[in-house]
Amino acid sequence: MADASAAVLNRAQSSFDAGIGRLVDLLRIPSVSTDPEYRDACRAAAQWCIEHLSESGISGELHETGTSDAPGHPVVYAHHPGPASYHGPHVLFYGHYDVQPADPLELWDSPPFEPTIIREGEPRIVARGAVDDKGQVMMFLEALRAWHDETGDIPIRLTILLEGEEECGSVNLDQYLKDHVDTLRACDVCLVSDTGMWNRETPAVTYALRGLSYCEAILHGPDQDLHSGMWGGSVPNPLNELTKVFGQLFGPDGRCALPGFYDDVREVGEQERTQWKSLGIDETKQLASIGLPPEANVGEAGYSMIERQWARPTCDINGLYGGYMGKGAKTVIPSFAGAKISFRLVADQDPAKVTRSLFDWLKARTPPGCRWELMDHGSGLPCTVSTDSPHMVLAKESLHEATGKEPVLIGCGGSIPVVGSFKTLLGLDTLLLGFALDDDRVHSPNEKFELGCYEMGLRTHIVLIGKMAAAG
Amino acid sequence: MADASAAVLNRAQSSFDAGIGRLVDLLRIPSVSTDPEYRDACRAAAQWCIEHLSESGISGELHETGTSDAPGHPVVYAHHPGPASYHGPHVLFYGHYDVQPADPLELWDSPPFEPTIIREGEPRIVARGAVDDKGQVMMFLEALRAWHDETGDIPIRLTILLEGEEECGSVNLDQYLKDHVDTLRACDVCLVSDTGMWNRETPAVTYALRGLSYCEAILHGPDQDLHSGMWGGSVPNPLNELTKVFGQLFGPDGRCALPGFYDDVREVGEQERTQWKSLGIDETKQLASIGLPPEANVGEAGYSMIERQWARPTCDINGLYGGYMGKGAKTVIPSFAGAKISFRLVADQDPAKVTRSLFDWLKARTPPGCRWELMDHGSGLPCTVSTDSPHMVLAKESLHEATGKEPVLIGCGGSIPVVGSFKTLLGLDTLLLGFALDDDRVHSPNEKFELGCYEMGLRTHIVLIGKMAAAG
Repeated sequence: MADASAAVLNRAQSSFDAGIGRLVDLLRIPSVSTDPEYRDACRAAAQWCIEHLSESGISGELHETGTSDAPGHPVVYAHHPGPASYHGPHVLFYGHYDVQPADPLELWDSPPFEPTIIREGEPRIVARGAVDDKGQVMMFLEALRAWHDETGDIPIRLTILLEGEEECGSVNLDQYLKDHVDTLRACDVCLVSDTGMWNRETPAVTYALRGLSYCEAILHGPDQDLHSGMWGGSVPNPLNELTKVFGQLFGPDGRCALPGFYDDVREVGEQERTQWKSLGIDETKQLASIGLPPEANVGEAGYSMIERQWARPTCDINGLYGGYMGKGAKTVIPSFAGAKISFRLVADQDPAKVTRSLFDWLKARTPPGCRWELMDHGSGLPCTVSTDSPHMVLAKESLHEATGKEPVLIGCGGSIPVVGSFKTLLGLDTLLLGFALDDDRVHSPNEKFELGCYEMGLRTHIVLIGKMAAAG
Repeated sequence: MADASAAVLNRAQSSFDAGIGRLVDLLRIPSVSTDPEYRDACRAAAQWCIEHLSESGISGELHETGTSDAPGHPVVYAHHPGPASYHGPHVLFYGHYDVQPADPLELWDSPPFEPTIIREGEPRIVARGAVDDKGQVMMFLEALRAWHDETGDIPIRLTILLEGEEECGSVNLDQYLKDHVDTLRACDVCLVSDTGMWNRETPAVTYALRGLSYCEAILHGPDQDLHSGMWGGSVPNPLNELTKVFGQLFGPDGRCALPGFYDDVREVGEQERTQWKSLGIDETKQLASIGLPPEANVGEAGYSMIERQWARPTCDINGLYGGYMGKGAKTVIPSFAGAKISFRLVADQDPAKVTRSLFDWLKARTPPGCRWELMDHGSGLPCTVSTDSPHMVLAKESLHEATGKEPVLIGCGGSIPVVGSFKTLLGLDTLLLGFALDDDRVHSPNEKFELGCYEMGLRTHIVLIGKMAAAG
């Protein structure tokens, strides 16, 4: 390890609590990007990041996105040229400052935007966005701050993009990348911290991500809510009809019934299957961790749980609504009913094709006298990253040195659509160094980030920056 | 017509506006019985009725219902012995002071609990409960008031029950009737105003009502909301599973797929079929009135629209909920998903049997690793009333005299469960004299009651009271 890195690690250690205090400040800002009510909060979170970066000597600015009719949330753009003598890779760091909605609020033990540090058990910080992705972004920003505070400079050439729309489909990011392609193609490699460790003791590099297609379908029937006594049995009930249609979306053997859905799926390789098997996953234990019995081990027939999570596509309804949803009874036939549906996709599926396929399938099943309102909430390409590039080697070495533990190569069932866009639009590979744990309750009430994991991420980034500075 | 009745009709005419003002006062009270938030408002509405009755010389009191663990809304009980010389029938008048929830609020043109009188077009009063059932109850209470104010007395023997739980399944009413059976079995006939006219020009007596079974089913899966990327495809998603199960509830030809559901259904008789056909219903026009095209004329195969509404059972989902129901996208697998389901039933179906049948059917389809939470939100017997009793003859004559129009005998797709209970528990037939119109938006935003209909009801009750006083 370079001497400078060792000193920077010490510096980070001594200012660890101050860094957590700054993370708390960022977590207090309710930057829920999908909900227009939190529009100003999203901008405030972006501005907060600019100010944090400037304290490390990195100049940044907000770049607006979207159109005047449909304005997006701003991108935090920052750049530092590094030392004149720098010969290492020009790093593009990507993260997101927006968070998922906090509902259902009543299931949180502490308010989602009042970060709470719990010292009992594994010390951890509980808040919406603690690990996804504010905490993971802050590991990198605090690594930069430690380098700056210890050495007076940033030792690498660096561009930073912090997005504000990751949790609502990154609808404007591809256009942003296209608009800035001349600047961004000067980068050599992307670095993203939005994935997980294998477990608390084992750091990981993620090399396969699922893609995503997210849609919403509203079925409209009568032009008003109707009394189910007066009208029941004589007109189409959008709730009945929606249920009948979507009930057909799930085929036998846990497969999606959309025609051609599996045509472009790359089969799980023998090598992956063997490697993942060697991880020794206890499926029953996994289920128990979310309160499910062994018989809940369902899904596409013929694949292990980890294969279903990392390498097989899915179809999930993420929301259903319509009619009376309060307590008690109301005898209503509503004028509409809706469903939110997402597909997790794997190489080489095309999200746009899947979305079209769903819409065509729904249209072909339009109940008599009804009409569909179909919405595309965004998509992301599935992605598989090369595991033997020089950058990947640096990343694995940094993980090992910073944590003292051998990292493993894993897949991830989630989607980071921008990774596909970086590859497609900028020709860049992405290093996915993440420090979340499976039980971090990402997207759920009581989301947490363990301080031990945060510390490993902070140390890994400090070491990786040092290695890049020493390279070339 | 008796001279007294003519004078009372004149009296009612001259105080018509004052009576509407009193209805406005009652409609201002948001007595939504299904929502615990409006508990006090329900009691206030009940108390208001007591005071109105006392101004007509009728003493009443609130009778509590339910248990200390699950208190119900009070019943308004009132009694007047009538003149000592009275030989007519002892009338049991039943109505309800509770109303449906007002949501979706944003679709109301005026606030649901700020009654608005509109003079353009057909003069009408717009408010939640305008016609169901506060307006229809007030036609009778104001008829009593007119008799009292004109003659100084109430000329018939009368018991009044105003329920506060009709819109949430009348869960405590049967027990109430059983507890007061000794008093109530002194009555000779029930009188209920909670049904409709055939159309604006044609008053009607309703002689067939559908029954109801209302249930709720919540499917529980994981003990927490999950990230659909991390877990999608490897665990049961309650939204997917709920949709799969309920999609099977609807069989071919628009029929309910519950085993044995049609076993006890009394087939539509040739006479009914002919009589209803002679009403000359324009089904396409009916559909157009709720914004539906002719191809929306769906339902159980082999039956006309009116037969499907009045004489065939149905199965309707009245509410679906689960996962993310806000704007935009959230990639969640929720820990539960729920559906509210109701069945409209016809003679001789047994609501309790249908509820059991649904629960058994659901249990037999429990998705692996999940569990059902099943709730019975109440039920009501289907009911067919004799059309040639002396009371029915009086009712038809009163309608004719008070409105100058020949009434027709009709069925009704809705349910007034208490009519079944009056028959079963007290042995009483019920006269259903209602003045609602099909487009009154019962249970919907902008519920209204036309003042012309209200006036016909008021006059009919005045004449009917006079005829009963003159009878025997």
